Amino acid sequence: MTKTFTDIIPADSLFGKLRAKAPDAWQSYVCHDFIKQLGNGTLPEASFKHYLIQDYLFLIQFARAYALAVYKAEDLMAMRQFSATVHAILDMEMSLHLEFCQNWGLSEADIISEPEARACVTYTRYVLDQGMQGDVVDLQVALMPCMVGYAEIANRLMASSDTVLEGNPYRAWIEMYASEEFQDVAKAEIDLLEHTAAKRGGNARIEGLTQTFATASRLEADFWQMGLDLAK
Amino acid sequence: MTKTFTDIIPADSLFGKLRAKAPDAWQSYVCHDFIKQLGNGTLPEASFKHYLIQDYLFLIQFARAYALAVYKAEDLMAMRQFSATVHAILDMEMSLHLEFCQNWGLSEADIISEPEARACVTYTRYVLDQGMQGDVVDLQVALMPCMVGYAEIANRLMASSDTVLEGNPYRAWIEMYASEEFQDVAKAEIDLLEHTAAKRGGNARIEGLTQTFATASRLEADFWQMGLDLAK
Amino acid sequence: MTKTFTDIIPADSLFGKLRAKAPDAWQSYVCHDFIKQLGNGTLPEASFKHYLIQDYLFLIQFARAYALAVYKAEDLMAMRQFSATVHAILDMEMSLHLEFCQNWGLSEADIISEPEARACVTYTRYVLDQGMQGDVVDLQVALMPCMVGYAEIANRLMASSDTVLEGNPYRAWIEMYASEEFQDVAKAEIDLLEHTAAKRGGNARIEGLTQTFATASRLEADFWQMGLDLAK
Amino acid sequence: MTKTFTDIIPADSLFGKLRAKAPDAWQSYVCHDFIKQLGNGTLPEASFKHYLIQDYLFLIQFARAYALAVYKAEDLMAMRQFSATVHAILDMEMSLHLEFCQNWGLSEADIISEPEARACVTYTRYVLDQGMQGDVVDLQVALMPCMVGYAEIANRLMASSDTVLEGNPYRAWIEMYASEEFQDVAKAEIDLLEHTAAKRGGNARIEGLTQTFATASRLEADFWQMGLDLAK
Repeated sequence: MTKTFTDIIPADSLFGKLRAKAPDAWQSYVCHDFIKQLGNGTLPEASFKHYLIQDYLFLIQFARAYALAVYKAEDLMAMRQFSATVHAILDMEMSLHLEFCQNWGLSEADIISEPEARACVTYTRYVLDQGMQGDVVDLQVALMPCMVGYAEIANRLMASSDTVLEGNPYRAWIEMYASEEFQDVAKAEIDLLEHTAAKRGGNARIEGLTQTFATASRLEADFWQMGLDLAK
Repeated sequence: MTKTFTDIIPADSLFGKLRAKAPDAWQSYVCHDFIKQLGNGTLPEASFKHYLIQDYLFLIQFARAYALAVYKAEDLMAMRQFSATVHAILDMEMSLHLEFCQNWGLSEADIISEPEARACVTYTRYVLDQGMQGDVVDLQVALMPCMVGYAEIANRLMASSDTVLEGNPYRAWIEMYASEEFQDVAKAEIDLLEHTAAKRGGNARIEGLTQTFATASRLEADFWQMGLDLAK
Repeated sequence: MTKTFTDIIPADSLFGKLRAKAPDAWQSYVCHDFIKQLGNGTLPEASFKHYLIQDYLFLIQFARAYALAVYKAEDLMAMRQFSATVHAILDMEMSLHLEFCQNWGLSEADIISEPEARACVTYTRYVLDQGMQGDVVDLQVALMPCMVGYAEIANRLMASSDTVLEGNPYRAWIEMYASEEFQDVAKAEIDLLEHTAAKRGGNARIEGLTQTFATASRLEADFWQMGLDLAK
Repeated sequence: MTKTFTDIIPADSLFGKLRAKAPDAWQSYVCHDFIKQLGNGTLPEASFKHYLIQDYLFLIQFARAYALAVYKAEDLMAMRQFSATVHAILDMEMSLHLEFCQNWGLSEADIISEPEARACVTYTRYVLDQGMQGDVVDLQVALMPCMVGYAEIANRLMASSDTVLEGNPYRAWIEMYASEEFQDVAKAEIDLLEHTAAKRGGNARIEGLTQTFATASRLEADFWQMGLDLAK
């Protein structure tokens, strides 16, 4: 994939430093084959549908994790930003997701009846436990590969000569995450980490946080692999 | 205070049973002297202002507790209702509270600079720990005396011959909690407890839940007493 | 495998009822191929060593989960029993495990340098999150397939005509878990669940608890599969 | 009280820095009137007995908090030290405490039947919530005023010319906490904080940790005041 793309992660931000310290884990996630195939339109439909179903189940746990962040945050500004994300997931994203799924012939009943795949359990429960064991910064670092990674993935796809938008069945997916609105949400997450980490010794904790960041990125890569493998 | 008032708590609901099993603790809260003086307008202004300041600090912890309930809830319906409460507290109630405080000559700076009084720390941290130690039902039972109690207090005041609305400086407070909007929120809390408790053996846990309910009610009564005593 | 073995789980205990309600998940765990091969001595050494390493990493998270149970327990008797388990894991089992590993040519350095396999992350973080989200009973039901399952596995192997103890390289493993000492620990866990569940509506929560029990059993089965597959 | 005493807190340790940044809160605790009267033997027996009863109830919550620290710790060394404290509290200190109480005419039944006083609820639930909201360092800083403070109190009393050991009914209490054994436990806590804080940006978080330290110290002072006031 291309190396020049609109990079929204400032190199000198804490998240930028984490990415620089665990490049392999990050690459395994943002340049995964699932993404390449999605970008050029060759991804098997069954893989995409399996991913879509699991992504819905993922959102439930993701909402729990952001709710935990509200509980853990230490000032009103951070509490409000996390709460807005909980609200957005539960009351907007989930129904948008169901609409999107319907366009792929998946009903709510289809989705709800499916058990969580291992890759979904692993990543979400890892995030939740990491966040509960540590503080709000640990939780954010475990959570952020999701939203910020999707933003980077979309930007990489938009910049890549391998990407085919014309006639690509996954075009709507790519454009949703490349949208200014979604990019702004990801940027706000990066800024919020700067804010909370500043009060909680973030830079002095870079070694431990890097481990969390790398593990979370690898578990996100597993989520793509689950799609390719149709793994339960 | 009067014994006939619009009672929104069904006797055969779990919350109704808890109230019936711990009448002294509940009465010490909903019929506290602070409330009687507020109802007849004789409450010292300093007591009310002290209460208002602490109630703002209380809301921050209260939002954390409802966020914990989102994390703990086991279905989307419950998650959404708790999330709506978090959102309402952080993005509406707190600014309404500040406006209300301004009418009493209290600026945001006055409020924020004040440390949490003991009665505020005790009640909120008790709720948070009880909720973390137990499940969502334990958390709800510890939380509910607040919202449902305020609804009952307002209904009792509206029905009491001791209450003086005309010229009462606290009239707006009484009418806010007697409003249909607030009463509906309290009723929805009672219904939600029925819903979550049904899945989690609520009635079979009545003894333990009664202890939580009684302790939470007494700690709410302490909050009123803190206002009367101007206690730090 | 044989159907007649020394069954330490009383049919009318809560754990017995859970086992009866999710027989497939339980069987997939206690009658896994890994166990059959271990019983007749044909399990590849590499599989056993991979399991041993991961089991050590598992113990660390397991100790955290029992510590969480101390935090969550509601009486001193339960707190003491859980605390004894934490103490036993951290200060006895882990060093016994290292000794055992040394006999298989695995040094502490070999073990510590290995990252947690996915199956280990999935099961342990699922248990920890389930326990944090719910109450002590939810935590116990998620935890118990481990200790009680190992006890049943050993009893099944001891009773099975397929089992070969003579010259079986895994004989020490089987006899350790078949020992009276270990069986007593497992029985004490079953009794403790009766004790805590009685106060917390256990029988009225059987549907939800069955889901937790079944998921935990399946994730335990995954742990055996990880050994067979040498999966990372 | 005297200013020269055997000071076990190194000035350049994190705990030493916290003490230096919140001297008033710390003094309010370690030089409280309850302690002065205990030192010269004039403390009313009723105050001491009330304190003893509440201190037993406190130990239950304290054990929960150290169990939480096991869950939160990030390496085996820290997990083992916290686990040893849980074990010591539940299986040794609590029975020693009951023996001690019996010498004062208080039976286990007397103690268990007593409800937790507000000051006990406030301090313990504050510690538990602070620890759950933050990380292991936040938890340690909230917990440590207890054990380390008692060690300093005993050393201050032993060094003070106001202290009367001869004929002092509280002599056994003073000597217990001045004992080498207890002092070593307190020193080990100080060392463990150095260890965990080093990995988690402790010094960079000094402002936030100072607030926790100061609040915990003041809530400990409240515990003494509760004894003097015989407060419920």
